[in-house]
Parts: sequence; structure tokens; C-alpha cells
Amino acid sequence: MTRPSGRTPDQLREVRITRNFTRHAEGSVLVQFGDTHVLCTASVEEGVPGFLKGKGQGWLTAEYGMLPRSTHTRMAREAAKGKQSGRTQEIQRLIGRSMRAVVDMTALGERQLIIDCDVLQADGGTRTASITGACVAVHDALQGLVTRGVLATSPLRDWVAAISVGVYQGVPVLDLDYPEDSECDTDMNVVMTGSGGFVEVQGTAEGAAFSRQELNSLLELAEGGIGKLVALQKQAVGK
Amino acid sequence: MTRPSGRTPDQLREVRITRNFTRHAEGSVLVQFGDTHVLCTASVEEGVPGFLKGKGQGWLTAEYGMLPRSTHTRMAREAAKGKQSGRTQEIQRLIGRSMRAVVDMTALGERQLIIDCDVLQADGGTRTASITGACVAVHDALQGLVTRGVLATSPLRDWVAAISVGVYQGVPVLDLDYPEDSECDTDMNVVMTGSGGFVEVQGTAEGAAFSRQELNSLLELAEGGIGKLVALQKQAVGK
Amino acid sequence: MTRPSGRTPDQLREVRITRNFTRHAEGSVLVQFGDTHVLCTASVEEGVPGFLKGKGQGWLTAEYGMLPRSTHTRMAREAAKGKQSGRTQEIQRLIGRSMRAVVDMTALGERQLIIDCDVLQADGGTRTASITGACVAVHDALQGLVTRGVLATSPLRDWVAAISVGVYQGVPVLDLDYPEDSECDTDMNVVMTGSGGFVEVQGTAEGAAFSRQELNSLLELAEGGIGKLVALQKQAVGK
Amino acid sequence: MTRPSGRTPDQLREVRITRNFTRHAEGSVLVQFGDTHVLCTASVEEGVPGFLKGKGQGWLTAEYGMLPRSTHTRMAREAAKGKQSGRTQEIQRLIGRSMRAVVDMTALGERQLIIDCDVLQADGGTRTASITGACVAVHDALQGLVTRGVLATSPLRDWVAAISVGVYQGVPVLDLDYPEDSECDTDMNVVMTGSGGFVEVQGTAEGAAFSRQELNSLLELAEGGIGKLVALQKQAVGK
Amino acid sequence: MTRPSGRTPDQLREVRITRNFTRHAEGSVLVQFGDTHVLCTASVEEGVPGFLKGKGQGWLTAEYGMLPRSTHTRMAREAAKGKQSGRTQEIQRLIGRSMRAVVDMTALGERQLIIDCDVLQADGGTRTASITGACVAVHDALQGLVTRGVLATSPLRDWVAAISVGVYQGVPVLDLDYPEDSECDTDMNVVMTGSGGFVEVQGTAEGAAFSRQELNSLLELAEGGIGKLVALQKQAVGK
Amino acid sequence: MTRPSGRTPDQLREVRITRNFTRHAEGSVLVQFGDTHVLCTASVEEGVPGFLKGKGQGWLTAEYGMLPRSTHTRMAREAAKGKQSGRTQEIQRLIGRSMRAVVDMTALGERQLIIDCDVLQADGGTRTASITGACVAVHDALQGLVTRGVLATSPLRDWVAAISVGVYQGVPVLDLDYPEDSECDTDMNVVMTGSGGFVEVQGTAEGAAFSRQELNSLLELAEGGIGKLVALQKQAVGK
Repeated sequence: MTRPSGRTPDQLREVRITRNFTRHAEGSVLVQFGDTHVLCTASVEEGVPGFLKGKGQGWLTAEYGMLPRSTHTRMAREAAKGKQSGRTQEIQRLIGRSMRAVVDMTALGERQLIIDCDVLQADGGTRTASITGACVAVHDALQGLVTRGVLATSPLRDWVAAISVGVYQGVPVLDLDYPEDSECDTDMNVVMTGSGGFVEVQGTAEGAAFSRQELNSLLELAEGGIGKLVALQKQAVGK
Repeated sequence: MTRPSGRTPDQLREVRITRNFTRHAEGSVLVQFGDTHVLCTASVEEGVPGFLKGKGQGWLTAEYGMLPRSTHTRMAREAAKGKQSGRTQEIQRLIGRSMRAVVDMTALGERQLIIDCDVLQADGGTRTASITGACVAVHDALQGLVTRGVLATSPLRDWVAAISVGVYQGVPVLDLDYPEDSECDTDMNVVMTGSGGFVEVQGTAEGAAFSRQELNSLLELAEGGIGKLVALQKQAVGK
Repeated sequence: MTRPSGRTPDQLREVRITRNFTRHAEGSVLVQFGDTHVLCTASVEEGVPGFLKGKGQGWLTAEYGMLPRSTHTRMAREAAKGKQSGRTQEIQRLIGRSMRAVVDMTALGERQLIIDCDVLQADGGTRTASITGACVAVHDALQGLVTRGVLATSPLRDWVAAISVGVYQGVPVLDLDYPEDSECDTDMNVVMTGSGGFVEVQGTAEGAAFSRQELNSLLELAEGGIGKLVALQKQAVGK
Repeated sequence: MTRPSGRTPDQLREVRITRNFTRHAEGSVLVQFGDTHVLCTASVEEGVPGFLKGKGQGWLTAEYGMLPRSTHTRMAREAAKGKQSGRTQEIQRLIGRSMRAVVDMTALGERQLIIDCDVLQADGGTRTASITGACVAVHDALQGLVTRGVLATSPLRDWVAAISVGVYQGVPVLDLDYPEDSECDTDMNVVMTGSGGFVEVQGTAEGAAFSRQELNSLLELAEGGIGKLVALQKQAVGK
Repeated sequence: MTRPSGRTPDQLREVRITRNFTRHAEGSVLVQFGDTHVLCTASVEEGVPGFLKGKGQGWLTAEYGMLPRSTHTRMAREAAKGKQSGRTQEIQRLIGRSMRAVVDMTALGERQLIIDCDVLQADGGTRTASITGACVAVHDALQGLVTRGVLATSPLRDWVAAISVGVYQGVPVLDLDYPEDSECDTDMNVVMTGSGGFVEVQGTAEGAAFSRQELNSLLELAEGGIGKLVALQKQAVGK
Repeated sequence: MTRPSGRTPDQLREVRITRNFTRHAEGSVLVQFGDTHVLCTASVEEGVPGFLKGKGQGWLTAEYGMLPRSTHTRMAREAAKGKQSGRTQEIQRLIGRSMRAVVDMTALGERQLIIDCDVLQADGGTRTASITGACVAVHDALQGLVTRGVLATSPLRDWVAAISVGVYQGVPVLDLDYPEDSECDTDMNVVMTGSGGFVEVQGTAEGAAFSRQELNSLLELAEGGIGKLVALQKQAVGK
């Protein structure tokens, strides 16, 4: 088995994390997993939605979008169609849950973090790149609150990163790109914390059902990949 | 640890599968997982969506809804709000993928199966009940095509069923009801075929991240539960 | 003239009223007019819409829906289409007006009754079954407020029920089922109180216009039918 | 009892029918029932909707709208809100059914009549004025097809007109204006053909239920009023 | 070059301004530029949108619509389609900006002017007719506030009017009607105050780009035309 | 008068045009006017919309969007709100008209160019940057058709670029950034071809109306600026 990219089964694509990619957001990160490029911003707003008012805790929500021509053939613009697809909603809910797992809402206080992940160029794995980049954007936005004296310490309790794994031509491989993704029998997205706990595990049999043993191999690959991603996140912020 | 319902950790709620619950649908099943009641219908329509025309294969799609007062407090009606929630879309996409895993689209021919899962009463686990009931409705709809001489054999290749598992007060438990679901640290939905392969594994850490060991315990519980569900499906259709 | 069902012209279909059909709603009734089955729930919510705040009176509103495969061929799901049809809105407005005619809004106080009528199976006459069932659900919800000591007496001032009548093959007949409904020249829905007053009269010439004499015959049939329905409502609640 | 307008109980408001009010429509009528002014246009389009293609018959549909400031206080513009209200849909469905009752769809051939009723100024009775004016607009549009040699004779089989009646301060009165309409106990809209058949009867108890006797009085008033309206329609077209 | 209407290049169509065209609006004007007829109403509402509360100033907003059969062939009704077109939004934003240029928002106080321009019949130039008519409607609505003693003097600081100009068959012409508009190379809409200042200049090359010299000729034509329109506005209100 | 940026009145911000910014689009340009950064892609699709089929000509359309946190404070995502704002529609219509002015639709043949301008970072002038960048993206997409042998010569007849001008503290200035834009009395957007013809002129008085003389000064500034932009466009593509 040879991967279309020539990578070894447990090899990540080249990952780059560029901070302060745009000016206005409190955290702004361009994350690149090979040819998948996502702009992740974290915005801080004072106040929380109505159902949380007066409860002394913060809130975090996430939105996701793809630029119409981030893909091989142009997709219709969701704003023009007047609705977000089921896939978009599924992904933005996943990003939100992943980030809420590592932010201490009580320490955040009555303010809101809004994460926007917008795909500039897609080549598979946009949701895992989004989570990995968003965590750095959230780090920067929260650090900004500390720097400006709003908070004494950052409410970010741990790192969180995500990677896809799948069975390609019978072999478990890490970090699927688009040519692999479209031919995989089994496809799994794994979200883990820096300290090695699972936040989300989502595996789907695209063709034949998968066995417990395949599941185990895929989880091991993912654990290794996420360890490397967290190291890159720390390096990006100079830790 | 005592479960609110008094069940043992590996005990399913009482499961009932009532076929032919309504008259018009080609397959119509009321599935009850304790106090969770879902009406699952499978409709057969000749023809396929445009993108499949002339390809000699069928299609299967699923929709999900909750009656506004299926829940403890009334939810807004999605038809009146003018959009389906992200949760609704996520669930109906899951039901569709799960059923497509066991229906042979080429054997189905250029016709469409549309599954509707409508929750009449909710007490946790509506998506797993939906998948389990939908499979029987699909069985009946496809059997009808055989009976009417449209197809020689049923395109249903295997059974598929689903169950939730979670860590409740530190103990892995099977088939969460609403009181458990709202307090679980980790919540996992597992979809498997009758022959024991995984179709979907979706685990989420609601509070603290979960370990590989917890994941393994949960998967084992799920495997046991799904075995029982498939036995009940077979019994319901007299096999 | 023989009716497709073999009924006499003034004969209702078999009517069944099942209370407490689901658990969560304050009133929950499955009403069956032959093969037409509607789940009617009445929900009580404290507070009223903004335009009524501080006026010392309650509010009642109704919503109606059909499950996609309640019908002979599957209808598109309104939540998926993103809008309710004109027919749906017309029916839910009718249900709301009918119920408001028998509930004393001042006695109800600043709380809201929300009625949901969801058609599980349709065979003609879903709106008349809805009104007839909703009245029992409202009875139960209001009785619950009395039982819980919130109100001293029930604000339900009278019963209300509804029936369709039409001219089928030249003969006025009561309680049209689907085969009759689709062939009737004139179709009328009548809503009356238990004490014999008219709440709504809606007659439509589907083909030729109808005469005053036909109108009179139809109204007489309806009066007889509604008398029987109110008796069944009372019997259902043990009065 | 004195009516706010000083009219006798069986007196219509001053009714004016102005043909050719705008240039482009095949039929264009400004109808005035006192201070209620509605612009009714009938447009002819070749071809029919998909579900009627090749069946050798025509189609007729109607739409209704109110200009935002046709009313005492400004109403939100439905185009800006992005949806038509239930009331709007109810009225436009009524106009369509009323007109279809007098147009011979087979004689029309595979073409479509689209009626637009737009209220320029409202003072009660906009739906009855709309039907009464739309019939003249349809007459003119169909006559135009005859004049242009497209059809040999007009497919308009009869006239149709509509009027409201209600019980105001205990007395049945004809053609309710806004001050009466907002205080009526019972409100009925009646649509009849020129030859005296009923097309629609829609009576609603706003407060107390109404008796059979009241219903009869109201129907008699309506019959008289519609006779006068049909005479005015004929006079307007010079018959 | 002969204009289809036989007008000279610098000749306006016959312009009529009819005040008090409908009863309920505080200002109601039918403006006619030849066969283009627009009903312009100005509504006064106490209070301002949330973002302006407590700032001691008023607000003015405008909406625009075309009746479905105001045009040569019927257009779909925007309320039925569920959205306003880009063209509609562009025009109503233009009307709003134009009117805000001549109303003193501080003098208006915390109240809102809502302008509705609804095209009854279209023959080119609906936006320029709308602005010209709306100004008179606003004049009347504001004068009403003075008459009723709410304001001491009118917040209308100047007149504002608008006209189209274009290059038709090589010649700059004033006030394009539909036959000219659809064949013009360059089309410009100009909005000016009574004292001769520019409020909006919007020129578009439909085919070939236009030169600075053409632009100058067109602006001169427009200045002349707007002078005449302002004179007609003043005459209409008796000044 | 000193500009916030320290620029002279007729000085553009630093303009950068980066081609091939993303991989998939036939033309992909990042255009930067100082801190305003817009990603412009041009997509080529075979075939045209229905109304143009068989007419032997192509079509060009444009869409525009802002990433939610491209701005100082986060804006709601249009895809989540379910509609594009009036401003968005106005801008995308302007981009489309501007580009259609320089593309020969007959030479393009029955294919479609779709332009997407997505603002990554906003600091005023996003519409003028969009047009300027889009022209280079279109150039590249059309050149690609020539390179691939689909067309013999490029249908791009001329360059087109756009710039804003305004009166800031009484002085006409070129290329407004956000701090200037929000304080300008008069704001004008000018679109011109490489050969010096005007395609669009849109001037708006934000406060006081502007004079003919101010208009002339602004146009002169714009002419100078666009000359420089076209030179940069040519330089970017190596001409």
C-alpha cells in the first residue's frame, strides 16, 4: 500500500500554525494541515446569552464555514442559499463541544468566546484542523484577557487537538487527505486533550462495518498523531 | 451506585417492537425503549434523486422529528420555526448512514427508501431507538417488494441496531434513560450490525475527558446490548 | 347510494378517545375517527405572550401537523421544507379559535395553553378529529390545574366538538372518510358547543354551488353527529 | 341599534368598480366597498404548472396582500418579514377557490389565470371586496382572449361575489366595516354565484356561539347583498 | 434621434402629485411620472429602534415594493417567495438615505418615520418617482406633527427629488421611460436637494464605458429636471 | 488636515496583489489595500443558467461575503442568519456589473464565470479592493481557458479597477480607510476601465449635500488612483 501523498501510515501532513493572521480578532490563527487551510478566530464578547445571565459563568460557541471555492468544484454559498447544511452544523457543534471541554466556564466569568473556523482551502480534514487551530486562537484570546488584567489566570485548562484516521486499502493511516478520505472504508475523527483523555471519538463505516481490532488500531494511530499536534500547539505559543 | 430505574448496569429497558402501527407506510413500526416511544416508517418510492438517475442503484434517506410535547417541557415546533435544529440534522444523518450500511443499493434498483422517525414520547435514547425500529420498518418495506414480486430477494443484507452507553456515577451503564443521560460524564452511541461489525461509534466527554479503558468498557457493554436488540428484531419479524 | 364504508348517511365512524396517551403533556389524548388517528396534547405554561402581559388573562394557541407518512403517499416534512403550508395554518387557526370559544381566559389567569394536534394516520376529517380530541386534552390539562390547587375551578365553560358533512353522490352524509371526501361536491366542517351553539361553519362547493336547502340538510346532520361526539367526550372523562 | 356609518342593517356601503385601473394586466379592477379599496388584477400566462401538463385544462391561482399602511397602524411588510401570515394564506386560498367555481378549466385550455388582490386601503371586508373585484378582472382577462381570437367563447360560466354579514349589537347587519367588524359577536363571509348558489359559507363565533336562527338571518341578508353586487358587476361590464 | 414618447431630450414626462391618496397614513401621495405610478406613504411611530433609545434623536427608514402585475409580465410576489430581491433592497436603501439627507433627526425627536413606496404601475423610473413622491409624503406627515402641536416646526430642512438620465441612441436624455431604459448605454440616477446639492449620483455603463464629458452632460440634464420636480413638489403643497 | 494614516490626499494605501493564493479556483487572488484583505476567486463552469441556454453567450455573476471577524467587532454570520444583508447584495451586484463590462460574453461561449470575493480583514474599501482583485482573478481564469486550448483568445477586453474617494475634513482624499470612511461627509466609489472609461460612479452625501465642484475634484482624484491600480494589475500578471 502506498499513500497518494507518499506519506508513511503514521505520518501527519506538514502542519503549520500561524498566529495573528488577521488583526481584529482577540485570537486569530491560520492552521494548515498540508493543503487544508483554515482561518480560526476567537472573539471575546462581554456578557452571555439570556439563559446563562446571572449564573456567574461564561459561554463558548463555534461556527464553521467553507469559502465557496475552497473545494475542487465550487459549492453554493450557504449565505446565498439561506441555510447551513447538516454537515456544517454537525461540524460546528463538534468544534464547540471540543473547546468547551478545556475551557473553565466559571473562571471565564460572564463573557462569551465565539470561535469562527472558515476554510480557505480544503483537502480533507477540515474539522480536525479547525479544532487544532481554534485551540491556539482560544489560547491567545484568553491570554489577552490576562494581559489586559481582566482575568488573573487563563481559564484554558488543557490543550485540545483533533486528527482523522481511517482504513485505506486495508491499512490504518493517520491524517487523511482528500484522495484518501474519498476512498476510505472506515473514517474516524478523534479529539483528545493534551493530557491524553478522549473528548470525542466518531467512527463511521463508509462501506463494510469495522471490527473492534480495527477500531483499536485506529485509536492508537490517533493517539500518536494528537501527541505531535499538541507539541506543535505548544511550540507555536512558545511553550 | 443505583440506577434511577433500578436496572443493573448491563440491563436494557423493556424494549417493544410493534409492527404495522399505521396503515399507509410500506413499513411502520412503533419502537419502545421503556418510556421512549418512536414511530418509524419506511416509504418506498419509485425513482431516485437526479444525481443517481440511470446509475442502476437505489437511495435511502432518513428524517427525524420530535413532537413538540414529546418532552418534559414543550419544545418549539420545527415546522413553525422554519428550520430543523443542528441536533435534528445530526440525528437524521446518523439514521440514514446506519441504514445505508445494511441495504444493498444495487439490489434495490432505481427506487428510494425514505425513513421517518418521529418521537411520540422521549425519555433518552431517541436516536438509538429510532435506528433499531427503522431497521424493522425497512425490513418490512423491502419484504413487501418481494411479496409483490417487484424484487426476487430482499436487499437487506444484515440487521442493524443501536444503543447508548455512558459512565454514570463512575460506572459504565447500558441504555441511558433521560435522568441518567443528563448526568453522565461520558455518553456514547454505538451502531452495530447483526453480525457484530461497528457501523458508528460516537463518544462524547460531557465533563472530564475519558480514558481508553473506559472506552473499552463502554464498547463491551454496547456489544452485549446490541446482541439482545438484534435478537428482538428477529423475533419481531418471526425469524 | 352506498357509502364506501357501508355506513348509513348519518352514521359516525367508530370514535375512540384514549386519555393519557403520552406521559409528559398536562393533557394527552389519542383520538380515533375510524382510520384517522390524531395525537392531541395540551401544554400549560406559566406566563403569556408580551401583548397580554399584565392584563390578567390567559391565552390559548394551537399547532397542527401531519407526520410525513400519515397519508397514502408520503408528504414532504414541513420542518424540512422550512415552512408550514397554507392548509396547515388554516387548520391550526381553526383549532385555536374553536378552543378559545369554550375556555374562560380570565379564569385561566396569566398562563398559556398550547395545543398540539399531530396526525399519526389520516383517512379524512383530521381537523374535526383534532378539535374533538383537543377539547378532552384541554379538559384534562385544566382539571390538573384544579387538582394541583392552582385554580379553584376549571375555566372550561362548555364542550366543543367538530364534524364534517358533505353531499356524496347526491346524498348528505356525516363524517366523511377519505374516499368520500375526495369525491364530494360539497364539503362542510361544523364546530359546535355541547350546549348546541355554532362556533364555526365552513362550507365549500368543490364542484357545483350548493343550495340553501342542501346547506340546511347538512347542518342538521352535523348537529346530530356533534351531539354524539360530545356524549363520547363526557363519557371519556367519566361524566 | 345604530350602525357607526348610519347605514340600515341591509345596506351595502357604496360600491364602485373601476375597470382598466392599471395598464399591463389583462384584467385590472379597482374595487371600492366604501373606504376599503382593493386593486384586483388578472394575469393570463400560457402554460400550466407541471402537475397539469398535457391534461388539456387550465389553472387559476390567487394571491393577496395588504400594503403596509393600508391599515390604521402600519403593519410589517410580509416581503420584509420573509413570510406570509396565516391570515393572508387563508384569504388567498379562499379567493382562488371562489374563482375556480365559476371558470371552466377545460374551456380555458392549457393556460393559467393568476389573480392578485392588493389592498390599498382597508376598512373591513377586504376579502369580500377582493372576490367581487377579482371576478370582474377575470371577466375582462377572459374577454380579452375572446377578442384576440384565442378562445371562441369566454370560459366564465357565472358571476361570483362575496359579502360579509354579522351580528352587531344583537342585530344582523350586512357588509361590516372595520368599526363593526371589531365588535361583532358573529362574523360570516358568504360567497355566491350570480345564479344564487353558495360557493363558500364561513361563519365564526367571535364571542358567544350562535344559533341556527341567527345563521339563517345572516344567510338571508347575504343573499340580498350578493344579488346587488352581481348587478353592479354586470353593470360595470356593460351587461 | 426621436424618443419613443416624442419628448425632447430635456423634457420630463407629465408629473402628477396627488396628496391624501389613502386615509390612514400620516402622509400619503400618489406620484405619477407618465405611466409610472407609485403610492408613497409616510407613517409616524412614537419611539425608535433599540440602538437609538435615549439618544434624543429620531429615525427614518424606507421600504419599496412592486405589485406583481405592475410590470409588463407578472413578477413573482416577494412575500410569497419569502425574500426581497437585491434590486428591491438597493432601491429601498437609496430612498432611505435620500430622505435622511433632508430630515433633521434631532428636531424629529425620539420618533420614527417609515416610508413605503409601492409601485402600482411601472414604466421606468420607479425609484426616482418614489423619492420625489416620498418627500411630499414626509412633508405632510411632519406638517401633521406641527398641526397637532407635537412639534413646533417641521424637521424637513429642504426638498429632495430624483430623476434618471441616460444616453439614448447617442444623445443624453432626461427621465427615461421603460422603452428607453432598456436600450440605454449609460443610465444614471441623480438625487438632489431643493437648494441644488447632490445627495446621490449613481451612474452605470450598461454597455460601453462612458466618458467624463458624457457624465457632465448627464449631470446638467439632471440638474434641470430636478429643479422642475422641486417646483412641482412645492406647488403640490401650496407653496 | 492630516489623514489618520499620514498619507497625502492623493496617495493610495500600499496595494498588493498575490496570485494563486489558493489551489482549486481557476483564478485566485489575495488583494490587499493596506489592512483590507480580500480573497477573490474566479470559477469557470461549463454551461449557463436556463434563460441563456442556446443563445451562444456566457454569463458572469459575483458573490461577496465578510468573514464574521473580519471587522472590529464580530458581525453575525450571514449563513447562520439565513439571509444576506442589503449591503452584501448591493456590493455583489456592483462587482458583477463591473466585471461584465470588460468580459466579452459572446467570446466566452456557453460557460459561466462565478466570482467570489470574501473579506478576510476589513479596514474600509472592501468593495473597491474586491473589484480590483476580481479582475486579476478573472484574467487568470480566462487565460487558463486559452492555455488549455478551450478558447483561442481571452474574452477579457480591458482591465477594470475601483477606488473610493471622499471629502475628509473638507479635503478630497483618495482610497478611504475605515477611520476616514466613518467620518467622511461625502463618499464616492468609482469603477473605471484601463482605457479610462467610467463603468460605475456612486456618490453619496453622508451629511451635507455635495456640490458639482466637489464631485469634479473627487472624480479627478479617482481617475488618478485607478490609473495606478491598473498599472499594478498589469504588473501582477507580468505585462
